[in-house]
Amino acid sequence: MRKKIWIPSARLNDCCVKALSRVGVPEDQIKLTLQVLLTADLQGIGTHGTRRLIPYIMRIRSGLIKAAPKIQITAPAPAVRIIDGDDGLGPVVGMTGLNEAVKTARQTGVAFAGCRNSNHFGPGAPYALAACEQGMICIGGTNAFPTMTPWGGKEVLIGNNPLFVGVPRLKGNHFLLDFAMSVVARGKMRSAAERGEEIPPGWALDRQGHPTTDPTEGLKGFVLPIGGHKGYGLAVAIDILAGVLSGSGYGSGVRSLFQQWEEPQRVGHFFICLNPRSFLPPETFHAHLESLVGMIKSSTPIDPQKPILLPGEIEMATMAKSHETGIPFDEDIWDALLALSEGRYDITVSDL
Amino acid sequence: MRKKIWIPSARLNDCCVKALSRVGVPEDQIKLTLQVLLTADLQGIGTHGTRRLIPYIMRIRSGLIKAAPKIQITAPAPAVRIIDGDDGLGPVVGMTGLNEAVKTARQTGVAFAGCRNSNHFGPGAPYALAACEQGMICIGGTNAFPTMTPWGGKEVLIGNNPLFVGVPRLKGNHFLLDFAMSVVARGKMRSAAERGEEIPPGWALDRQGHPTTDPTEGLKGFVLPIGGHKGYGLAVAIDILAGVLSGSGYGSGVRSLFQQWEEPQRVGHFFICLNPRSFLPPETFHAHLESLVGMIKSSTPIDPQKPILLPGEIEMATMAKSHETGIPFDEDIWDALLALSEGRYDITVSDL
Repeated sequence: MRKKIWIPSARLNDCCVKALSRVGVPEDQIKLTLQVLLTADLQGIGTHGTRRLIPYIMRIRSGLIKAAPKIQITAPAPAVRIIDGDDGLGPVVGMTGLNEAVKTARQTGVAFAGCRNSNHFGPGAPYALAACEQGMICIGGTNAFPTMTPWGGKEVLIGNNPLFVGVPRLKGNHFLLDFAMSVVARGKMRSAAERGEEIPPGWALDRQGHPTTDPTEGLKGFVLPIGGHKGYGLAVAIDILAGVLSGSGYGSGVRSLFQQWEEPQRVGHFFICLNPRSFLPPETFHAHLESLVGMIKSSTPIDPQKPILLPGEIEMATMAKSHETGIPFDEDIWDALLALSEGRYDITVSDL
Repeated sequence: MRKKIWIPSARLNDCCVKALSRVGVPEDQIKLTLQVLLTADLQGIGTHGTRRLIPYIMRIRSGLIKAAPKIQITAPAPAVRIIDGDDGLGPVVGMTGLNEAVKTARQTGVAFAGCRNSNHFGPGAPYALAACEQGMICIGGTNAFPTMTPWGGKEVLIGNNPLFVGVPRLKGNHFLLDFAMSVVARGKMRSAAERGEEIPPGWALDRQGHPTTDPTEGLKGFVLPIGGHKGYGLAVAIDILAGVLSGSGYGSGVRSLFQQWEEPQRVGHFFICLNPRSFLPPETFHAHLESLVGMIKSSTPIDPQKPILLPGEIEMATMAKSHETGIPFDEDIWDALLALSEGRYDITVSDL
C-alpha cells in the first residue's frame, strides 16, 4: 500500500509552476496546463491530474514535447478553427482549441475547433468545465494511443478515445460528462488481480479473444468497449473527428505517452461549442434544463441511500471540498513532483 | 411464426406514396418521409422502416401529427438553424433539419440544426447517409419517449436517445454509425422470452431494480444503458441537445408513438454537419480516412470466418442487394400497408 498525503492546492500549484518553468514552458502556457491538470486534481480525477507532469516533463527533456511551441491558428471557414499544436503540451493545445471554439461560437452560434500535432491532454472534464464557465455547451473528444481492438478483432488498434459534454447551469453545478470508450480502465483489472478477485464478464477478452473473468488473462488480452460494437464504432468516429479531420495522427499513428519515446504523440482533439443564447432566451433555456434536472434528481433510486446523480455532480462537489482538504497524492508521486520543481530529474516512481 | 414476403422496392414505394397521399401529405413531404423510411428498409433496418407508417398514419388521422404542417425555419446565428416542425411527420421535420445543416455548413464549415415539435423520425442511418451523399460529415441525435431509468434509479424517465455519425467515403461505402443507448432493444428480450432462453447479465433489471437474466422479469423491469453510467449520461446529454436546446419536449415530456394518444409527441432532434473541405484538401482527407479504414479492415479477427466490420458496412451491403431481392415484410404488416394505400383503416396487426 502506497502512503497517501494531502497537498494544499496552492502548494501544488507552486510546485507545478516551478517544475514547468524550469524546463522552459512560458508563463501563459503554464497557466493553461494547470487550468486542466490542477482542475482535474481538484475534481477528484487525480489519475489524470498534475501527476501527468512527470511524463510530460520527461518528454519535454527528450525533445518529444516542445516547451515553447509555435501554435498556429487558422480559420478555414467562418465557424471552423484549426489549431496546429506544433507538438506542444496537450493541455496548452487543447485549451487553445477550446477557447477558440468558445470565442468563435459567440459569433456563429456553433463552432468547431480541431487540434492537430498535440499530446496527451489530460481528462475532458476540465475542458467541459472551462466551456461551461464561459456560458457555452461543449461537445469534445480526443483520440489516444491504441488500447482496444476493433470489434471482433484481436489486434490493438483503437484508442479508448474519450468523449465529453459540458452544459452550463445557472448556479455553477454544471453538467459534466466525460467517459472513455472502454468498459473499465485497465487499472481496475490490475486492482482486481492484486486482490486476487475475478472481474465481471464483459470487461475483457484474453489474448486469444475469448471472454475471461480472470484479471491476469484480461490484462494480457484486451479491454472491451462499452456496448460492444456501439462503443467500438463511437471510438472510430472520434478518431475520425479528432485525428483524421484535424490532420493529426489516427489509429496506430497515435503514440503512447508512457511507452513510445521515439516520436511525438500526434494526438488530435476536437471541440464543438454551442452558444445556448443563439437558441433560446437564457431564462427559457435554464428553466427547461432545470426542469429536466429536477425530473431526474427527484426520481426514485433503487437504493434509498444512493440518490440519483447527474454527470459531473461528484466532480463539482469534490472540487468544492478539495480547496479545503487539499489533494491526495501517493507520496512517491508527490516526491517526484517536488524533485521536478527543484530541477532534479533522477526520479523513480513505482507506478505512474 | 409470422409469414415473410418480399416486396420489390418500387412496389413498396408506390404503396407508401398512395397511403400518405390519401391522408393529405403533400408530395414533397412524402418524398422526404420515404427518403428516410424506405432507405431504412433497403438498409435492412425494417423495424424502423415503412412499417412505421402504420402508427404515423393512425396519428395523422387522430390529429396528433399534422399531414401538412407549416414548418418554420429560423436562423438565429450564422451557423445555427432552428426548425419548428409544427407537429409534422418526424422524417419530414428531420430531413428538413438535416438539409438545412448541410446547406449552412457549406458556408460556415460547421452548422447545427435543432428541430422542435417533431415526431418519431425513423432510424438515424438514413440521415447519416443523406449527409454523406452530399459530401458532409454528420453527427446527429434525437430524443425519444422514456424507456430507461436514470443510472441507479427505478423510474423510467430517459429515452434510449440514439446517436448517429456519418462520414462520407469516396466510393460510396460510407461510415454510418447509429445506435441507441440501451444495451439491447426490448424486442431481443421478447424473442428470448418466446424461446424460453435466459438473457445475458447486464441487459436488464427487474421491476425492483435487481439484475436479472430472466427475460420476462427484464421486460417487466428496465433495459440497461451501455456502459452503465456512461450510456445514461450520454442519453441525458442527447436529450439536452435535441430536446432542451431546440425548445422541444424532454425527459418525460416526450410522448410515445404507440402508447400515448392524447398529445403530440414533441420529439426533438439535432444535426451537426461538418464540411470536410473546410478542414483538409479532399484528396488528403480521403487518403487519411482510407488509411484508417485500411488499418481496421486488415487487422486480425478473432474468428477467421468473421472479418472486421466498419459501422455501416452491413447496411450499405444490404442496400446494394435489396434493390434486387426486394424487402422482407411480415405478411400482416404488408397487408396493413396495402390497406392504408387503399384507404381502409380497419387494420389489425399482431405486433407493430
